[in-house]
Amino acid sequence: MDLLLEKFKKLGVDSAPGQEQRQAESNAESNLDVRGEVISGIAVDFSHGDVDAFKPLPGSLEKFIDGYYVGGHQAYTEYRGGANSREDVSTVLSEYTGAGIDPNNEIILTPGTQGALFLAMGSMIARGDKVVIVEPDYFANRKLAEFFEAEIVSVHMDYFKSSNLAGIDLKELEDIFKAGAKLFLFSNPNNPTGAIYSEEEISSIATLAKKYNVALIVDELYSRQIFDNKKYTHLCALKEKPENMVTIIGPSKTESLSGFRLGVAFGSSNIIQRMEKLQAIVSLRAAGYCQAVFKVWFREPVGFMAERIKQHEIIRDALVNKLKAVPGISVRSTDAGSYLFPTLPDLDVSITDFVKIVRKLTGVTVTPGTEFGPEFTHSFRINFSQDSQAALDAIDRLLVIMERYRSK
Amino acid sequence: MDLLLEKFKKLGVDSAPGQEQRQAESNAESNLDVRGEVISGIAVDFSHGDVDAFKPLPGSLEKFIDGYYVGGHQAYTEYRGGANSREDVSTVLSEYTGAGIDPNNEIILTPGTQGALFLAMGSMIARGDKVVIVEPDYFANRKLAEFFEAEIVSVHMDYFKSSNLAGIDLKELEDIFKAGAKLFLFSNPNNPTGAIYSEEEISSIATLAKKYNVALIVDELYSRQIFDNKKYTHLCALKEKPENMVTIIGPSKTESLSGFRLGVAFGSSNIIQRMEKLQAIVSLRAAGYCQAVFKVWFREPVGFMAERIKQHEIIRDALVNKLKAVPGISVRSTDAGSYLFPTLPDLDVSITDFVKIVRKLTGVTVTPGTEFGPEFTHSFRINFSQDSQAALDAIDRLLVIMERYRSK
Repeated sequence: MDLLLEKFKKLGVDSAPGQEQRQAESNAESNLDVRGEVISGIAVDFSHGDVDAFKPLPGSLEKFIDGYYVGGHQAYTEYRGGANSREDVSTVLSEYTGAGIDPNNEIILTPGTQGALFLAMGSMIARGDKVVIVEPDYFANRKLAEFFEAEIVSVHMDYFKSSNLAGIDLKELEDIFKAGAKLFLFSNPNNPTGAIYSEEEISSIATLAKKYNVALIVDELYSRQIFDNKKYTHLCALKEKPENMVTIIGPSKTESLSGFRLGVAFGSSNIIQRMEKLQAIVSLRAAGYCQAVFKVWFREPVGFMAERIKQHEIIRDALVNKLKAVPGISVRSTDAGSYLFPTLPDLDVSITDFVKIVRKLTGVTVTPGTEFGPEFTHSFRINFSQDSQAALDAIDRLLVIMERYRSK
Repeated sequence: MDLLLEKFKKLGVDSAPGQEQRQAESNAESNLDVRGEVISGIAVDFSHGDVDAFKPLPGSLEKFIDGYYVGGHQAYTEYRGGANSREDVSTVLSEYTGAGIDPNNEIILTPGTQGALFLAMGSMIARGDKVVIVEPDYFANRKLAEFFEAEIVSVHMDYFKSSNLAGIDLKELEDIFKAGAKLFLFSNPNNPTGAIYSEEEISSIATLAKKYNVALIVDELYSRQIFDNKKYTHLCALKEKPENMVTIIGPSKTESLSGFRLGVAFGSSNIIQRMEKLQAIVSLRAAGYCQAVFKVWFREPVGFMAERIKQHEIIRDALVNKLKAVPGISVRSTDAGSYLFPTLPDLDVSITDFVKIVRKLTGVTVTPGTEFGPEFTHSFRINFSQDSQAALDAIDRLLVIMERYRSK
């Protein structure tokens, strides 16, 4: 079982968002260097958005109920999703992205965007292939590549360089592509920093991918929540896009529909077809009744999205101001999405221990930077889609704890 | 992309249940030897049960709605499923199977039993391992083994041998185990034949698995719908069970909850832990709100299951009598579940073509035997969880078509 155990050793979930409860149960904290007293306050889980603070899109439960009463036809869709849902979603996404999407051949509905990512990567690489991943980027990207026994090549992103671009090292990316890569996978806006790639960056990535025949997965999960009217470029709509590419998006974040587990991948028909074959053995389909909920997506009441974005802007600004006021902390303000990824000064404990200590002493959960790339030993990620006051208080408590560990 | 394409060539879904609509769209029928006129009647899709004829368990939608209103705590469960749901399900399954299940470490809630199968196999084998699969058995078992690049070894089952056992060749199984196998995966009741393994068969499998250190996956998906008060043996409750084993079950079949995509795997804690790690990158979790629906499972109103079983017995008997009356057709009556797997006489067309022709001429969908093992070139599978009259009429039409193709 050596090959198997080796593979799973790389798939740790203990520090993954949402798993903190199990970690607590495993008594991993027993050797922690815990300093000082507990600071009480409302527990806040920054590892994901709070769908109680920002409720699911209006009408989502009603559409689910409608789907339930449709009966067997809704329960047993094709593996790539029901034809009606695929048509609906293709229409709104074609309009949203500017890419024309053929509902019959170029789209698949999946159990969440995680499902889409898994199916996409599983359909685009084989073991030994080189997969290019940004540092920092979504933690599961690396784990997926490990699971499929790919070789991971990192490309770096200097997200503190300028607020007008993501800061990806395009020279490094070209060198990597030139040396032979099968797939480049990245999130835009970037998870965990909330940086949007500039038009020039996106256009360069497309051109390089086409030139060196590298397939692309573009994760646009948080692309609808754009602040300060920043410009966003959909790579899938560019003329220079490569032949093999898939775009991933879903209603779990800004729209708070995570409890229904819905995601979408659209792009090259040959890849979508392979994704469906894989879906057939992975989980058959996104839950049939849940697929009916897609009907509310991109059809929100007038003003709904603008208001939601505005509320998030306010929380973001308050948190950024608070963090920036602390000596030794750097943070880039979020362009889009609900993440912040501050850098801390040197502490007496590792970032993973710090995160555990903070949870123990304050009831506040954040995700350690090392989940997003091995070099991020001084960062943590928060999802600030939370009750505003609870979030601000929680960060206050975290900062008090931080001072207890600041290196002299 | 050779390794990748090769892998996906083995993952065909065109003949898989539920995909017939796409097949039709692909004009695969253009070269069919179509004889005679269309016979009209109510379209029946025997590839899966009809949840309109046999409705979802009472209260399931209500529990979903309750779950939705619980909010964030229900939307974002641990990857292995919410603690409350795991406790509920462990309690009823411990009672049902006689195996003690620790809700914290020995159970995972999955997106359908397909999800459970995928996670289990992915957590128990690595490429090159030998996986033993029954002929005939559930079509996805072979595809999963192919996807994980395992070596498939077939063990045969003479399901016409006796109605008191499944007919698995235990001598052959021991020879295979002795030659070195990593995993044995089988469904009980068997899909597609509906045969129940006898107590002696199950006990022998357990003993052999332990003796030769072979891991087990036992798929008990249809084990609650047992006819004629037959005896059913849960391998997981036997003293002689092997160290590494997982049992799979879910509420998608008899309980008609397929539209919620819910499944369960329970067993060895080290395997369950790996399954959770895999779930974290495959689809995160079974849809959070859907998990709330587990509350109705095994808590049906008094008499509900007995009545559902009785109704299926009546349909089964009518279909078996009808099929047995036709010269050249053999069929084993179902011990449990809703499948029949008749053997046909020689026809002028292949079974895959016959299935396509039947659908074209009668609107009746059945699954070709070759999905369940390459040798089943004269068989098809039906799921008779259907409206009774529609099902009987549909089989009448199929039989008329069959006569048009009977070899002289």
